[in-house]
Amino acid sequence: MSRPGQPSRGRGGPGGRGAQRSPARQGPPPRVRRVGSGLGGDVVEGRRAVIELLRGQRQVRNVVMGLELESSPQLDEIERLCAKRNVPIELVGKGRLESTATTESHQGVVAFAKAVTPVDLEQLLKGKRTPFLLIPAGVTDPRNLGSMLRSAEGAGVTGVILARHRAAHLSPTVCKVAAGAVEHLRFTEVGGIPAAIEQLSKMGVTTIGLAGEAKQSLYDLPLGHGPVAIVVGGEEKGLPPLVQRRCTASVSLPQLGKVESLNAGVAAGIALYEVARQRLVAG
Amino acid sequence: MSRPGQPSRGRGGPGGRGAQRSPARQGPPPRVRRVGSGLGGDVVEGRRAVIELLRGQRQVRNVVMGLELESSPQLDEIERLCAKRNVPIELVGKGRLESTATTESHQGVVAFAKAVTPVDLEQLLKGKRTPFLLIPAGVTDPRNLGSMLRSAEGAGVTGVILARHRAAHLSPTVCKVAAGAVEHLRFTEVGGIPAAIEQLSKMGVTTIGLAGEAKQSLYDLPLGHGPVAIVVGGEEKGLPPLVQRRCTASVSLPQLGKVESLNAGVAAGIALYEVARQRLVAG
Repeated sequence: MSRPGQPSRGRGGPGGRGAQRSPARQGPPPRVRRVGSGLGGDVVEGRRAVIELLRGQRQVRNVVMGLELESSPQLDEIERLCAKRNVPIELVGKGRLESTATTESHQGVVAFAKAVTPVDLEQLLKGKRTPFLLIPAGVTDPRNLGSMLRSAEGAGVTGVILARHRAAHLSPTVCKVAAGAVEHLRFTEVGGIPAAIEQLSKMGVTTIGLAGEAKQSLYDLPLGHGPVAIVVGGEEKGLPPLVQRRCTASVSLPQLGKVESLNAGVAAGIALYEVARQRLVAG
Repeated sequence: MSRPGQPSRGRGGPGGRGAQRSPARQGPPPRVRRVGSGLGGDVVEGRRAVIELLRGQRQVRNVVMGLELESSPQLDEIERLCAKRNVPIELVGKGRLESTATTESHQGVVAFAKAVTPVDLEQLLKGKRTPFLLIPAGVTDPRNLGSMLRSAEGAGVTGVILARHRAAHLSPTVCKVAAGAVEHLRFTEVGGIPAAIEQLSKMGVTTIGLAGEAKQSLYDLPLGHGPVAIVVGGEEKGLPPLVQRRCTASVSLPQLGKVESLNAGVAAGIALYEVARQRLVAG
């Protein structure tokens, strides 16, 4: 429902969005994504992710929204935030929306924004909170990366390190699955994960690799104090051997059943929350 | 690569599976899935899931496999297990495979099996291990249910309770995402989750509902001793209110960032592993 005193762009009452009105503005065609625009994140799809984008710090160019959507509190919130930030909304038909969106789960909303700006490694370690990093190493599945980022934000991660090559970047699918977490995390992009881990070690960060075959259990490590980084591998190949060798320690999650692996995104979530739990206990 | 002394059905050397040979047998057409066959689980797709199906206890009718697949240790293992269990393999072309499979991630293998047989609630609580149950309540997304089952098996869950209606059952997607966990878990099917929770309480099981809005933290509860059930809701609506009221306690995971929710499958994994951790500590 449209709230009184708030802008309503093309909302058409009970008959659905824009049913009785023509689009408020046709506007320019949606921007074409640049290939190789660093970290990515320039296309954000899905209601939750777009709301968090508009609540965050990034410059948002425009939002493309379906004409025939039913009213919803989330769509109202997107309109309210766009008005507040002076971001144009373009209302389009279903065909145009489908050709604009790159995921199947856009929920009628696509936003175009300035790509996520990385910070350098030294900057990533600065801040009020003790550094708590997530380092995806060889994670190529965008759903897994998105899931990891969402859990990371919830667990209080202070920074994420991503490899420049051969890894999932902040694609529309990653941003959608991360459900807005991308907007509230800081990222550093590095040429190679092994070198970054070595550098972190020199800077006093304990790097913990999650490796299914490791003999030490995650639960045997004290992780409640000091700077820590959780390093996680991909679903298929796990942690790359060179990455694992550079880590301060490799740990596994206990496998108490007969099937010997967890989903990579879930395993990362469990490890990140174990750090969060120990930090809460340590006060 | 085919191992010496092991059966190879239609493997065609470096040119791909069956490149130089005709299929070993055309066999009957794949079974059509019955609608409403109880818990489901009668169609299993994906290499990992099919391997665990063949390693498990269920009767397997036949396996349909792509003709033009590259050799892989997992396909070798499927052939070995089929030979051992006398399960016919039907090698089919790509078109036939696509029309047989119901998911997009079948990885060239579809198996048809006897549906999963539920046990009754009393039976579910029997066994050597202290009962540790997972109760999905209102989980409709098959990917989330599959993810929960995979984590449950790893965390040592002794039984799963599923609602007969309005909930995801053991569909091909669930079985695929669960990566074989379905074969090593026991299931009870109930008419209603609230009544089942009440019954469990009477039987001495502590039922813990995961609810984002709960004030008590998961980490404040002692879960290392005695029978326990973790009750989790769906991604969109969370735990149904009636279910939540019937639970012994409702808990949330600490949210230390700005985005206020975790993926339902990940949250379930974290809670299940917290029970596993406390049980390991308690010895």
